[in-house]
Amino acid sequence: MPRYVRYVERGIAHTGTVRHDRVHDLPLDAEILPLLRAPEAERYDVLLRSGKQQRKAVSETELLSPVEPRAMRDFLAFEAHIAGMKKNEPGDGTVPEQWYEAPAFLFMNPWSVVPTGTGIPMPPFTQKLDFELEVAMIVKNTVRDVSLEEAFEHIAGFCILNDWSARDVQGNEMRVGLGPSKGKDFANTLGPWLTTPDELEQYREGDRYALEMSVAINGEVVGTDNLRNMSWSFEELLVHASRDAWVGAGDVLATGTASRGALSEHWARSGTLTPPPLKVGDVVTMTVEGLGTIENTIVDRTSPAYTVPRARRTYGADRL
Amino acid sequence: MPRYVRYVERGIAHTGTVRHDRVHDLPLDAEILPLLRAPEAERYDVLLRSGKQQRKAVSETELLSPVEPRAMRDFLAFEAHIAGMKKNEPGDGTVPEQWYEAPAFLFMNPWSVVPTGTGIPMPPFTQKLDFELEVAMIVKNTVRDVSLEEAFEHIAGFCILNDWSARDVQGNEMRVGLGPSKGKDFANTLGPWLTTPDELEQYREGDRYALEMSVAINGEVVGTDNLRNMSWSFEELLVHASRDAWVGAGDVLATGTASRGALSEHWARSGTLTPPPLKVGDVVTMTVEGLGTIENTIVDRTSPAYTVPRARRTYGADRL
Repeated sequence: MPRYVRYVERGIAHTGTVRHDRVHDLPLDAEILPLLRAPEAERYDVLLRSGKQQRKAVSETELLSPVEPRAMRDFLAFEAHIAGMKKNEPGDGTVPEQWYEAPAFLFMNPWSVVPTGTGIPMPPFTQKLDFELEVAMIVKNTVRDVSLEEAFEHIAGFCILNDWSARDVQGNEMRVGLGPSKGKDFANTLGPWLTTPDELEQYREGDRYALEMSVAINGEVVGTDNLRNMSWSFEELLVHASRDAWVGAGDVLATGTASRGALSEHWARSGTLTPPPLKVGDVVTMTVEGLGTIENTIVDRTSPAYTVPRARRTYGADRL
Repeated sequence: MPRYVRYVERGIAHTGTVRHDRVHDLPLDAEILPLLRAPEAERYDVLLRSGKQQRKAVSETELLSPVEPRAMRDFLAFEAHIAGMKKNEPGDGTVPEQWYEAPAFLFMNPWSVVPTGTGIPMPPFTQKLDFELEVAMIVKNTVRDVSLEEAFEHIAGFCILNDWSARDVQGNEMRVGLGPSKGKDFANTLGPWLTTPDELEQYREGDRYALEMSVAINGEVVGTDNLRNMSWSFEELLVHASRDAWVGAGDVLATGTASRGALSEHWARSGTLTPPPLKVGDVVTMTVEGLGTIENTIVDRTSPAYTVPRARRTYGADRL
């Protein structure tokens, strides 16, 4: 009830719903989150009228991302992904105990959100462009200190997230200790639309959703997992993120990479660059049961790739 | 030309300018960034009229943060801070080579921005509450791939940032590899107002600003540094952040902690918890030459401190 989509028509951003692969217009002043927060009778009325509006095939529609988040939090909720990554890192190859204690996350660049269908320019200074297969929860209300009991009512819905990553750039940055920066700030595909929780009721198992997830390069599937394998529920991620901190309406809370949902996990497990890093012309397609499909093509670099000098020494030995 | 401030009066947010410790009203529809982007004649006209408006002492004004950023990037630009921190970490105690190569940064919670004067509730689950003395650059325009030559014109101005940090929480999180999350997402003081670059011309040395920085606990200075000790200029930070990525109008690019600008650096250098972690009632005051002073008091915990269970095992051994 139902799938909400944003799209462009004649240069204007529209909001609509998706049914049977067709987009139905909503009134031009309709916005997804206010509509989800409106009284049920009012929402039904708008949706009913929308059902009578113009219909267009999804395939002929230029989609936008369903939300423009102010904050995007990315978790690391799939144990087998982190276990795989550790196989090729310094240390004893096991998942750190701190990972099990609490769902760690990082904030990502909210300006980098792009929809399905756009070209992803090859970032400068990388030979190891990669993707990350994730599911994103969209938050309905601006909240703080959410309890587990009330968490579900603050979920607007879900979509697919591809957190594009330049692994060589990211690897250097992470040795500084702050996490990745330029290795992950250039693009995040969020789409194709927002699916409300009631649409996923049939897939619900306890507090998890049993949704098959897959990623393909040029049509060949290279990784699959199931959303039920998250080590924390979405409600738990919201409880944790909002503890003593604001989480805003429209914010994204993403699962982190599913197992086998990134080339880098394959590389770490096999010790070889197989499948090879993404190159210009590659098409990356992600499908999650119940949520749809997002697809982007890697295109030529557009950035002039300006650089800055190395750090300058400014302190005397007495201050270091 | 001049210092721009936001403040509350009778429940309404106002914008004004600060001169000689007095706040001068701007028209109610004035906004800082659009004003900075307006033609010079238009801006002068607004400021001239503002000079004739009501004046009130800064000390009697309830200030707001000068901007509400969508993205906040925090760098690590002071070599002596990272050198000090490394003295008490595993490894050989030296700054990693990757730190010198490029200015690494992380994204912070944009919803956590608070003004000078507000109480900072003691976060749950920490025995090591700390501060970070930083300067924040505010970006004037939404830009991408900024060259060093044009970077200066995209700077709206500067203010002081206190990036409050729960060191014990942060320490556990950083072992997962994503950087800090709950250890730093609860509060960031940004203020007291936005000072435009021309106001700082007298302090400019080459591409740096020579501004004395200090932090005091309950009136006693515990750390000082000088802004000229950044290993990269603000212009260089903007070039780096905007390379193949959007940086938005109103975004914050912060220097990271000045040397001796956090208790944790003292702790790492001495191997003891001296000065001790912050406690309820402590007043933290930060002053930066030319930018003013921000001050906050630690108050009682307000969060109910909801927790989530440890990670659940969901994969069979064959998938891990």
